[in-house]
Amino acid sequence: MFPKNAWYVACTPDEIADKPLGRQICNEKIVFYRGPEGRVAAVEDFCPHRGAPLSLGFVRDGKLICGYHGLEMGCEGKTLAMPGQRVQGFPCIKSYAVEERYGFIWVWPGDRELADPALIHHLEWADNPEWAYGGGLYHIACDYRLMIDNLMDLTHETYVHASSIGQKEIDEAPVSTRVEGDTVITSRYMDNVMAPPFWRAALRGNGLADDVPVDRWQICRFAPPSHVLIEVGVAHAGKGGYDAPAEYKAGSIVVDFITPESDTSIWYFWGMARNFRPQGTELTETIRVGQGKIFAEDLDMLEQQQRNLLAYPERQLLKLNIDAGGVQSRRVIDRILAAEQEAADAALIARSAS
Amino acid sequence: MFPKNAWYVACTPDEIADKPLGRQICNEKIVFYRGPEGRVAAVEDFCPHRGAPLSLGFVRDGKLICGYHGLEMGCEGKTLAMPGQRVQGFPCIKSYAVEERYGFIWVWPGDRELADPALIHHLEWADNPEWAYGGGLYHIACDYRLMIDNLMDLTHETYVHASSIGQKEIDEAPVSTRVEGDTVITSRYMDNVMAPPFWRAALRGNGLADDVPVDRWQICRFAPPSHVLIEVGVAHAGKGGYDAPAEYKAGSIVVDFITPESDTSIWYFWGMARNFRPQGTELTETIRVGQGKIFAEDLDMLEQQQRNLLAYPERQLLKLNIDAGGVQSRRVIDRILAAEQEAADAALIARSAS
Amino acid sequence: MFPKNAWYVACTPDEIADKPLGRQICNEKIVFYRGPEGRVAAVEDFCPHRGAPLSLGFVRDGKLICGYHGLEMGCEGKTLAMPGQRVQGFPCIKSYAVEERYGFIWVWPGDRELADPALIHHLEWADNPEWAYGGGLYHIACDYRLMIDNLMDLTHETYVHASSIGQKEIDEAPVSTRVEGDTVITSRYMDNVMAPPFWRAALRGNGLADDVPVDRWQICRFAPPSHVLIEVGVAHAGKGGYDAPAEYKAGSIVVDFITPESDTSIWYFWGMARNFRPQGTELTETIRVGQGKIFAEDLDMLEQQQRNLLAYPERQLLKLNIDAGGVQSRRVIDRILAAEQEAADAALIARSAS
Ligand code: FES
Ligand code: FES
Ligand code: FES
Repeated sequence: MFPKNAWYVACTPDEIADKPLGRQICNEKIVFYRGPEGRVAAVEDFCPHRGAPLSLGFVRDGKLICGYHGLEMGCEGKTLAMPGQRVQGFPCIKSYAVEERYGFIWVWPGDRELADPALIHHLEWADNPEWAYGGGLYHIACDYRLMIDNLMDLTHETYVHASSIGQKEIDEAPVSTRVEGDTVITSRYMDNVMAPPFWRAALRGNGLADDVPVDRWQICRFAPPSHVLIEVGVAHAGKGGYDAPAEYKAGSIVVDFITPESDTSIWYFWGMARNFRPQGTELTETIRVGQGKIFAEDLDMLEQQQRNLLAYPERQLLKLNIDAGGVQSRRVIDRILAAEQEAADAALIARSAS
Repeated sequence: MFPKNAWYVACTPDEIADKPLGRQICNEKIVFYRGPEGRVAAVEDFCPHRGAPLSLGFVRDGKLICGYHGLEMGCEGKTLAMPGQRVQGFPCIKSYAVEERYGFIWVWPGDRELADPALIHHLEWADNPEWAYGGGLYHIACDYRLMIDNLMDLTHETYVHASSIGQKEIDEAPVSTRVEGDTVITSRYMDNVMAPPFWRAALRGNGLADDVPVDRWQICRFAPPSHVLIEVGVAHAGKGGYDAPAEYKAGSIVVDFITPESDTSIWYFWGMARNFRPQGTELTETIRVGQGKIFAEDLDMLEQQQRNLLAYPERQLLKLNIDAGGVQSRRVIDRILAAEQEAADAALIARSAS
Repeated sequence: MFPKNAWYVACTPDEIADKPLGRQICNEKIVFYRGPEGRVAAVEDFCPHRGAPLSLGFVRDGKLICGYHGLEMGCEGKTLAMPGQRVQGFPCIKSYAVEERYGFIWVWPGDRELADPALIHHLEWADNPEWAYGGGLYHIACDYRLMIDNLMDLTHETYVHASSIGQKEIDEAPVSTRVEGDTVITSRYMDNVMAPPFWRAALRGNGLADDVPVDRWQICRFAPPSHVLIEVGVAHAGKGGYDAPAEYKAGSIVVDFITPESDTSIWYFWGMARNFRPQGTELTETIRVGQGKIFAEDLDMLEQQQRNLLAYPERQLLKLNIDAGGVQSRRVIDRILAAEQEAADAALIARSAS
């Protein structure tokens, strides 16, 4: 159960640089490629001739060529040509609204008519030269909502990430959760603590002393369909915390785009955007590798949690204050799902009435 | 859905040289071995004692010995002996008609009574010293009919095998398909083209110039249950093509025996028979390795096509002129399946009437 | 189908030395660990907070800490604490009766109330300094009863273990089976035979001539729920066989604890206890490695037998005299299962009547 009329991150540009990419998103098998003039395109990964996956083919002059018998597919899902054949009567396949923005390829797996590029989640840092971004992709066998829960409650850092970003003070600090429209915000402030290893390195990377107490913050923002962006940082203690002047703090945005593959698996695009030393490509790589290791620590937990939930489907889970972020996010999702269902029903009624 | 009253290639002699071979064919679990006087035998791969697979046992004096407790199985499916036991009352297991011919072991997975060795597909080149043969075996997770489609329409060579035997002219040449009884023949002639790499090597191997235009031919013959034999070759252009005198051409027969394992998997015995330089065992090996590589290029396409068809079972595929060979072959198969069903029904009625 | 109100071997102490162990037993997902004062404890492997497996956590001061958000679980299945939370209302999870004895951790997967430690199968050699023990653990994809059949009929040694402990005389020697209460005993005596390789080595290890005829014995004892202990040995021929004075014989007990994981898979704890040279730790290791190799030979046979039985569920297996041990053992198991069912029904009626 995931909203289908929404923009999800489908892939990164490097994944379609040389050849088409076949990827299942929200249960739809889709092939992504660069169509005419290098613009991204996405159609069903199913050749109308004999059902071969078009992703095993190649792109020639912006046309997707089936690797089996050479059918030429257009980016609207209409066959353009096929050697020795008249193709006018060929059935169309589904095509998908797709956009390239902020360094990602975004797809709208639902009704193409409704896909408004203006609805793509705005990333103010993405095209800003004062910011740098690095990230990666994990495939995880869990419901996308388990990952939202994970990210909207960072007490798990104390346990899962004990040696990098976790610290005892996290789960002692009170968490506050609020909902603003479809956005859910959960935040936690830890004043006058010693920074854990990851943040000590960030302070040093930022030219700041790393052996003094700091004020630390975590502000998680869920936005539909399944994005979680987390402002995190530390400032030398007593300088104003989150609001401290730039020269006393190191901060960044943890970026999490969670794209359902199926009901129990996801494509997890993770990364970090920072607004200090944006030219430092080596620093970007160091952070990326470190973050990749930290986020990999969650994989096993999430996959085994998923297996446990499938094995005990009748069990009720607890909803504690620390879970409020996840619980509220699911409520937003449920509201969107209900609206999608209602719209679909209305369309059905309208169609049968006409 | 596959004919069961038909001869399929089960294995090659080397596969049963040292020990029994367990192999599922047309959904039947069968063990193949050399029985009395080295004659091939095949029975169910299920020991009547405790259900152990007989293929984990060994052969002693032409008797198949169960590797668990030593039961001795005869080639008719009747237990011959067991240490310390009287075996008269032991239930029989199924035995299968099996023949060794043309360098293959053939099995009839259906009704043993109907198995006439004269019905084994005749291979005129197999026992002829002027011909040489080399081949191999692939296991592929697809319906056997997808492989028939593949072989009865060689336009895919242009795309799947672009670097070896494919060439643009293939899918430009008109294809003609005709049906003669249960045989389906689809042929294509390309006159005055440059030979692709595989055929240039074959010309050289045959002592012929490889840098001149050639006339090329492909004549695919489907024969039930699922054999496809393809005459392929090139002749120096203008010398008569397929009918050119031997000194101007290089040709061979691509051999494809497709044996269903289950509804969605096959044992694919592929090879090439040639009537030039038959003593050249190194040449045989070179061709075998080359052909193995080419045929491996189809595997991924077929397996992913199969997965696509399972994911979208309701989709109609197109039936173009290039698909006529596959379409006609399926028609022959359907006719045989209907006849098998009718015979089974008639037998049922006869039995219940008596 | 396995008795649940019974003591099974769950693991060995080394498996829970550093961290909790998650293991499914009789279809129950259980986490084993050392609780207060180092005593073994076992609860469901399902955190009441969000369903994470507790086995991914760690133990602190005898409390099992969930690795996700730090919930502290007590050994009775009651949450003791959680950072920043009141836990009184948290639902309990199931806890299991568990005992450490004889060098094994034993678990009672059924009704905790009924778990009487006095019912743990007595192993007279286990705490006796004149005996030494070495063993290992295999995971096998078969019904636990197939392993009982295997061990209660050692004729398979002739075939499966031809090169180590098998010999032709085994399946020629008459086997006798008797039932004493819930114990099934099947025995076989082979007089005046040459010892096979394993036993020749044992004779030498025992300081005895290995090139003279021996009297050999095998006495298999099944005890519920699924233990098989086998007295095996050889004595110089004519010295009294099983009853010969110690200086003429080498003997030991083959230990087999078969713990169902699911209906078609087991944890198989195998080992050997011997009462000669008990201090010889190198000898223990040599025997352990040798036995491990021999027992590994059974794995493939058992797993493929299981697959055959699943493929042909309707087939009747034979019950020969050599199968009497397995057949009688299954009868004991069926009796216990029926009693468990009856008790469960009675409890249900009592509850609904009150
Ligand atoms: S399957 Fe795509 S062109 Fe034939
Ligand atoms: S299972 Fe084959 S002899 Fe026992
Ligand atoms: S899932 Fe165990 S503490 Fe949250």
